[in-house]
Amino acid sequence: MRVTHTNINVQGFHIDRYGHVNNARYLEFFEQARWQFIEEYLNPAIPEKKNWQFTVIEINIKYKKPLFFNSDIVIETKIEEIKYVKTLMSQKIYLKENKELATIGKVSFVIVDTVSGKPIRITDDLKRYLEKGEI
Amino acid sequence: MRVTHTNINVQGFHIDRYGHVNNARYLEFFEQARWQFIEEYLNPAIPEKKNWQFTVIEINIKYKKPLFFNSDIVIETKIEEIKYVKTLMSQKIYLKENKELATIGKVSFVIVDTVSGKPIRITDDLKRYLEKGEI
Amino acid sequence: MRVTHTNINVQGFHIDRYGHVNNARYLEFFEQARWQFIEEYLNPAIPEKKNWQFTVIEINIKYKKPLFFNSDIVIETKIEEIKYVKTLMSQKIYLKENKELATIGKVSFVIVDTVSGKPIRITDDLKRYLEKGEI
Amino acid sequence: MRVTHTNINVQGFHIDRYGHVNNARYLEFFEQARWQFIEEYLNPAIPEKKNWQFTVIEINIKYKKPLFFNSDIVIETKIEEIKYVKTLMSQKIYLKENKELATIGKVSFVIVDTVSGKPIRITDDLKRYLEKGEI
Repeated sequence: MRVTHTNINVQGFHIDRYGHVNNARYLEFFEQARWQFIEEYLNPAIPEKKNWQFTVIEINIKYKKPLFFNSDIVIETKIEEIKYVKTLMSQKIYLKENKELATIGKVSFVIVDTVSGKPIRITDDLKRYLEKGEI
Repeated sequence: MRVTHTNINVQGFHIDRYGHVNNARYLEFFEQARWQFIEEYLNPAIPEKKNWQFTVIEINIKYKKPLFFNSDIVIETKIEEIKYVKTLMSQKIYLKENKELATIGKVSFVIVDTVSGKPIRITDDLKRYLEKGEI
Repeated sequence: MRVTHTNINVQGFHIDRYGHVNNARYLEFFEQARWQFIEEYLNPAIPEKKNWQFTVIEINIKYKKPLFFNSDIVIETKIEEIKYVKTLMSQKIYLKENKELATIGKVSFVIVDTVSGKPIRITDDLKRYLEKGEI
Repeated sequence: MRVTHTNINVQGFHIDRYGHVNNARYLEFFEQARWQFIEEYLNPAIPEKKNWQFTVIEINIKYKKPLFFNSDIVIETKIEEIKYVKTLMSQKIYLKENKELATIGKVSFVIVDTVSGKPIRITDDLKRYLEKGEI
């Protein structure tokens, strides 16, 4: 199972005037977790050589429980579905302590060819790359 | 028509390693625009007195066009639908120059009673407040 | 007198767990204010054409009064001293309401030649540019 | 020797339009590193019980080398001098790879009594706390 678990300790600057993590910060947490996933499973040298750029086109985030200062959280990241052009990732935030689910994220991205500037249709080699991190 | 238009000039610190506005920053833009909407139409003294707290429970954001350094953008914010418990806002980002639509946001929030800590059902006075900014 | 005044309304996401503006955010406020100064007095087309890049090398910031949610602040920005290689800017934050001084910033920058990657000695044409925004 | 070393991997959202870490982000890095120092050496339960609040009053930061995407950095944090009212911390950023010094930070803070709202003179028990993490 290709999944990563990213650990973050909630800092004072993540907190906003309501006393919990500001909703924009979650997208930074998600980006950090996706980068860990890419490093572990999607050999970043390949997209660089192929002029492929991961481009987020849609994010959906459900804030189920607020996150507080100094909480230890874990972000579980995985690829959920590879479609014709876009790929859907699941990113869930749990409290480390009790495994309680705090946040549900869905992130859709496409692979853009940086030469043409256009998203690439997911054909066999790109699918193998997304599934196995190799081409 | 109760709608606000929030102007932002994209700054160097909004930009990330891909050369366009980082996807987390959009949620800060949206929060700033919602705050302007609240100030214009939802008299912030009322929720403070009633112990009502706006709490975002879900955000959906579609990134249609990237935003670049020094662009002037406009965020159009309005209430789209008031449901049984939650309220749905629409937040769209346009380029000021040519009115091109860059981003589509949907933000769902509930009103939490800060004493009980629970979301409040949207009954008549709360509906009037959300629709007219008065109770 | 070449000075700019940048107005910012403190947002909920600027606030941290202590209930006032997080100390990192001040540097974003300063950057926004410097950008306004550059646009008003330092014709940004010139450094772009000359391959000059403003590069901050040192910041000193004294936090005299905390800043709170929804405060209207004004940042006064000016060039204080042009030295042999580096230029010193003064950036002060005032509360709009009562002109109270909240923060004192000093920002030193050099002009880097983006071709050589090295800071440029401030000779006559660069001095005229920094003083008058023309060459 | 009471010193902490905080490891951070530079993320895409730390980078700004110049292609290196934005100068505001360094203060978030420093805050994270100070929090680690407090947790290791300054038992955070003590200031909470005593109504002491660490309050940063001045930061000086020298940017010697830019930091780039995906760099592994280490922040070395220690107390440099305990004065009559304020305490001076040293925070230096090194590249992990080659130990090259990238950034020199000096952070001055006072301990504010949250009841009176005033900074406390550093008498014997406070000095012992800052030096040994106990009272």
